[in-house]
Amino acid sequence: MTDTRYDVIAIGNAIVDVMAPCSDELIEELQLAKGGMSLVDADGATSLYDAMGPAREISGGSAANTLAGLSALGANCAFIGQVANDQLGEVFAHDIHAGGIDFDTPAREGEPPTARCLIFVTPDGERTMNTFLGASQFLPPAALNEELIASAGILYLEGYLWDPEEPRKAMRRAIEVARNAGRKVAFTASESFVIERHGDDFRALINEGQIDILFVNESELATLTGEADFDAGLAALQDKVPVIVATRSADGAVAVAGGERAQVAAQPVAEVVDTTGAGDLFAAGFLYGHAKGEPLETCLKRGSITAAEIISHYGARPEADLKALMAEKLG
Amino acid sequence: MTDTRYDVIAIGNAIVDVMAPCSDELIEELQLAKGGMSLVDADGATSLYDAMGPAREISGGSAANTLAGLSALGANCAFIGQVANDQLGEVFAHDIHAGGIDFDTPAREGEPPTARCLIFVTPDGERTMNTFLGASQFLPPAALNEELIASAGILYLEGYLWDPEEPRKAMRRAIEVARNAGRKVAFTASESFVIERHGDDFRALINEGQIDILFVNESELATLTGEADFDAGLAALQDKVPVIVATRSADGAVAVAGGERAQVAAQPVAEVVDTTGAGDLFAAGFLYGHAKGEPLETCLKRGSITAAEIISHYGARPEADLKALMAEKLG
Repeated sequence: MTDTRYDVIAIGNAIVDVMAPCSDELIEELQLAKGGMSLVDADGATSLYDAMGPAREISGGSAANTLAGLSALGANCAFIGQVANDQLGEVFAHDIHAGGIDFDTPAREGEPPTARCLIFVTPDGERTMNTFLGASQFLPPAALNEELIASAGILYLEGYLWDPEEPRKAMRRAIEVARNAGRKVAFTASESFVIERHGDDFRALINEGQIDILFVNESELATLTGEADFDAGLAALQDKVPVIVATRSADGAVAVAGGERAQVAAQPVAEVVDTTGAGDLFAAGFLYGHAKGEPLETCLKRGSITAAEIISHYGARPEADLKALMAEKLG
Repeated sequence: MTDTRYDVIAIGNAIVDVMAPCSDELIEELQLAKGGMSLVDADGATSLYDAMGPAREISGGSAANTLAGLSALGANCAFIGQVANDQLGEVFAHDIHAGGIDFDTPAREGEPPTARCLIFVTPDGERTMNTFLGASQFLPPAALNEELIASAGILYLEGYLWDPEEPRKAMRRAIEVARNAGRKVAFTASESFVIERHGDDFRALINEGQIDILFVNESELATLTGEADFDAGLAALQDKVPVIVATRSADGAVAVAGGERAQVAAQPVAEVVDTTGAGDLFAAGFLYGHAKGEPLETCLKRGSITAAEIISHYGARPEADLKALMAEKLG
């Protein structure tokens, strides 16, 4: 095994979030699936944007959010993802670099523009996401820096990006590179609809032992395993995946690894402002602890602390000093 | 006088704010004038952006912020300003429209891009602004819809926009149109450096009786009048400007009109998060009351309430329901 240059390298969507508060009535009027993520085309994005109130733009993308958390905690990180050569692409690249994360995937010329996610946030803090994938879905396998992937302790992959064809090929190749280099592969299922479309791929990867660390939420676990019961779902995977992390929103999270099971309650939050990025930041906290070889329960606790920070404000990139927050909460 | 279609029409910079927290050390290292506004060219903007932490983008522009407040309070508003035909221009136009404000200045093709303001926010909540004016400085007099200007009760002008030549011509023409239609002209001095460059123009407008309502802060008042003493500054203007509103940050604000003087203390704020837009939103609250013909002290109180809202969060566009807030605070 070569030296570990990065703690985590991630491949994910390069997205700028466009976020605005909205009423529950507007969610109904627009016939959006509250709390979910839907893909929209350019026209769909335009008409939803027209219906949206005054917004703010904050860099997003699931795996990129996770790296922002990891980097803020002190991990060395690199990101691979596709932006277009446009203003939103510059915004995404700036924010990744400013977070101390290496990112050198060249911007793509011409149409489509950089991906954006239109996020409607209801008064209960729930986010409803509508993603226009734009340039992000054209990440080519040729954009992979294989040496970089081989030099990272963990390769982190975002299920969302399994949907478009080119990045899927790129991720398959990345898994090969990482495994050949003796590295770990972590995977987040991202969203039930992704599993509905690509569950066979994911189950094959799992059965072949290609996934070392798997992040799912309750409904993704059920969709992936076909088991409606949470514990039955975990039981179906635990002999195939070395580390399983299952988040349960306000009910905390469970991890199963090497026959051991640990769980944590959700960290209390004064006010849930915006749940965007809760899962992404849970993964950040957990992976940080895992990379340091910490006990399962500590890893979960770190995840619950970073998730609590992210849902206390707008946007899926951390605002608090995560190192200081961790020191305060973990003691 | 024709019917009043708008309560307020404003001409201002069309800017997207790019905002990030920063340390006092970084302000020193970058040799920025803390609390001020500086103009930067494209290269200057790039190098400052490189030095900035992960940021968020929120529409800004002084007069546009004021309209966002006015519209949220229930006033009918229109905006005139120049964006480029690019993504940040779309963001600006979206946010103005979504705020219920009419805006139909055509986007400008080609370079330069839409204006942006790089805002560094220190832990004390003070903002240090660095504006790349881009397309905004090319607002041509031909872009004025004179019928619209003549149909608005108040024409509101932003001193910042006096600096570039084309918008200055456009504003001079707009003043003519408004006055010929028997409308009021309101003017915000914006920033001392603008007065240093164009004080002669401003003093001439004031002496000619072209300005009905003038917004200044303490240092702008001193620069404009040459009087270091606050009261002497007010005295120098009070026979020439029908309504003078002078804000004094944490010390509240004073208004002088028709021989009457009123003042308010600053509204208490739990935490000053970001002072960007404090003056803009003070103007919004004041103008709303003034357009309704309310007593001077009530107008000031409205201004202090909207200013307090804006400094309690990031960004210069209101987040709270201003109508509800006003009802609660004014009783």
